[in-house]
Amino acid sequence: MALILTFLGKGGVGRTTVAIATAKRFASQGKRVLLAIQEAGPAPGLMLGVNLETDPKDLAPNLQVVQFQAATLLERNWEELKKLEAKYLRTPFFKEVFGQELGVLPGMDQALVLNAIREYDSSGQYDVIVLDGTGDQTTLRMLGMPEIASWYIRRFRKVFADSDLGKTLSPFIQPITSAVLNVGWTEDIFNQPMAQQANNLLEEGRKAIADPNRVVAYLVVTEDEGAIATAKYLWGAAQQVGLTIGGVIFNRASDISLDPFFAPLPVNPIPTQPFNDWQPLMDALPNFDQASQAPRAIAINVAERKVSLFLPGFDKKQVKLTKYGPEITIEAGDQRRNIFLPPELSGKPVTSAKFQDSFLIISF
Amino acid sequence: MALILTFLGKGGVGRTTVAIATAKRFASQGKRVLLAIQEAGPAPGLMLGVNLETDPKDLAPNLQVVQFQAATLLERNWEELKKLEAKYLRTPFFKEVFGQELGVLPGMDQALVLNAIREYDSSGQYDVIVLDGTGDQTTLRMLGMPEIASWYIRRFRKVFADSDLGKTLSPFIQPITSAVLNVGWTEDIFNQPMAQQANNLLEEGRKAIADPNRVVAYLVVTEDEGAIATAKYLWGAAQQVGLTIGGVIFNRASDISLDPFFAPLPVNPIPTQPFNDWQPLMDALPNFDQASQAPRAIAINVAERKVSLFLPGFDKKQVKLTKYGPEITIEAGDQRRNIFLPPELSGKPVTSAKFQDSFLIISF
Repeated sequence: MALILTFLGKGGVGRTTVAIATAKRFASQGKRVLLAIQEAGPAPGLMLGVNLETDPKDLAPNLQVVQFQAATLLERNWEELKKLEAKYLRTPFFKEVFGQELGVLPGMDQALVLNAIREYDSSGQYDVIVLDGTGDQTTLRMLGMPEIASWYIRRFRKVFADSDLGKTLSPFIQPITSAVLNVGWTEDIFNQPMAQQANNLLEEGRKAIADPNRVVAYLVVTEDEGAIATAKYLWGAAQQVGLTIGGVIFNRASDISLDPFFAPLPVNPIPTQPFNDWQPLMDALPNFDQASQAPRAIAINVAERKVSLFLPGFDKKQVKLTKYGPEITIEAGDQRRNIFLPPELSGKPVTSAKFQDSFLIISF
Repeated sequence: MALILTFLGKGGVGRTTVAIATAKRFASQGKRVLLAIQEAGPAPGLMLGVNLETDPKDLAPNLQVVQFQAATLLERNWEELKKLEAKYLRTPFFKEVFGQELGVLPGMDQALVLNAIREYDSSGQYDVIVLDGTGDQTTLRMLGMPEIASWYIRRFRKVFADSDLGKTLSPFIQPITSAVLNVGWTEDIFNQPMAQQANNLLEEGRKAIADPNRVVAYLVVTEDEGAIATAKYLWGAAQQVGLTIGGVIFNRASDISLDPFFAPLPVNPIPTQPFNDWQPLMDALPNFDQASQAPRAIAINVAERKVSLFLPGFDKKQVKLTKYGPEITIEAGDQRRNIFLPPELSGKPVTSAKFQDSFLIISF
């Protein structure tokens, strides 16, 4: 398993520059590194001085680079889907459609890139994967997908089972599944082998993203007021998808201190990059091991019947706690998170909720 | 109907600055303008000196501003979906799930923003909508969605009808639809009233995006090599979703000429913004009416049996023409486009395809 590192921050702060320097530094330390570039187009290749391709290619000793292309990834995944279909479906259907025909719809980029990262991670070929992503809300949507998709499945499965619609359809489920699937059927359509396989992948993804030893993001800022505000916002929003922010990289650093904005995170100044010279940046980068000391997004204390969420950058009125469905929902920074409570707390009424020093503390 | 204007370019080139200046200029000319901001977080509000909200608020005479929030839009759209469901379904199902619980999955942002723009457009309250979007591939995915989603429906409908799976399922379709729907059923599940309504929306969207008098994008660049390369790339990629690029805005302009990179598009230099003074930028902006003279993404000439696609910024080997399924697929710039041919050309073999002067010319 690799350490997956990514960078968040406003456009123009130098995220790609920092990602390249990070990849180069890990490689110089003898780690096997993949620099994975999500931005389409020629700009990242110009910075690296190579033609980027959709398969990893060598850039330096220990360092490979790949530029994702959604159309290519879609084609490859389509072939995998056809294999699954051939395995589970009595009469394959997708086999008539060619991967080369498929256009890319919104959201596919993120799902495909997340899956590609998962595959590179599990290949065992890399110690570190540096993802040069979009660095904004879109990256958080991508990393939040396993948790949120799991919630959708969990919630709609229950609603379906309890609903009149589910009851109306249930007489049809057995004959349809036995006509369509070539594996044993169960009455619960969410319990078919294909659905279980998807569920397991989501659960593995959710765990990896919540573990700062597996996936960690750093904020990149300059001294620009907008860049600082955006980074603070993304810091809080990252907690909502369970992603740990390990620290702050202050690019083109001046003498001003950014500590007041980002305490308790360490702020690491790096200089403006001299033309085509990466060494000064590589030397100035933080020790990325520190990420495990950063505040965790969520802590559940069953004995004290308390859940605390770290939501930096928000004030009290920007955080909403609701309980409409069976789970608690936290809303902040255009992200909603449904907290899946352990059995000891699940279903218990909330007795208090307070927001102080960037922590939302919910008592049951 | 409003003119919808958006800006594409590399992060940090000043897209938001240009969008604000554009909105201010149209408003100063007496047009009713909505400045619609897609970027999450506080940075755009800081630039405008106001707290942005999820409903339009007045910024100046004739000028309103809104900041989209996916979680809020999702909640509103969920209520609409429940109304549709109550109308068409015998036993509503989604009514058990509250909009306030729903997390945002990748792609939802784009679908929700596109729908919100559609609603503001059809409200008749605005002459111009300036969309300050992500300005990259994600914006192109969003604007490409109506065409690509229409293709998926068209293609899979046919595959389903012809497939063994379709034949296996067909005995169940009548009893299920009559058990589930409270409107007349047809054997073709893609022909139900709800599906037709969705199809009409997609078709309207596709037409609007292909019409430079309805939707147009401008490239924003600086003299930075990466910014120029990214803009050229996005220019070509925009053609692939049928979006017209009206011209180039050269921000923080120096004396160098960018014409060689972007001919035949007009390049319009604008100065670095003086602190808090918008007038010099507003005065330097191009006349956005010129967009209708820009090369169109696609021209179909039935008499000459020719289809020409304008694909600037690509060389021959970056453009792929394939014919796997019933339609022709063009691939370039991580976008795939399926060309829906008029009946006179549909199904005819391709006799030649050549790529010259940025045009792909296909003969039948």
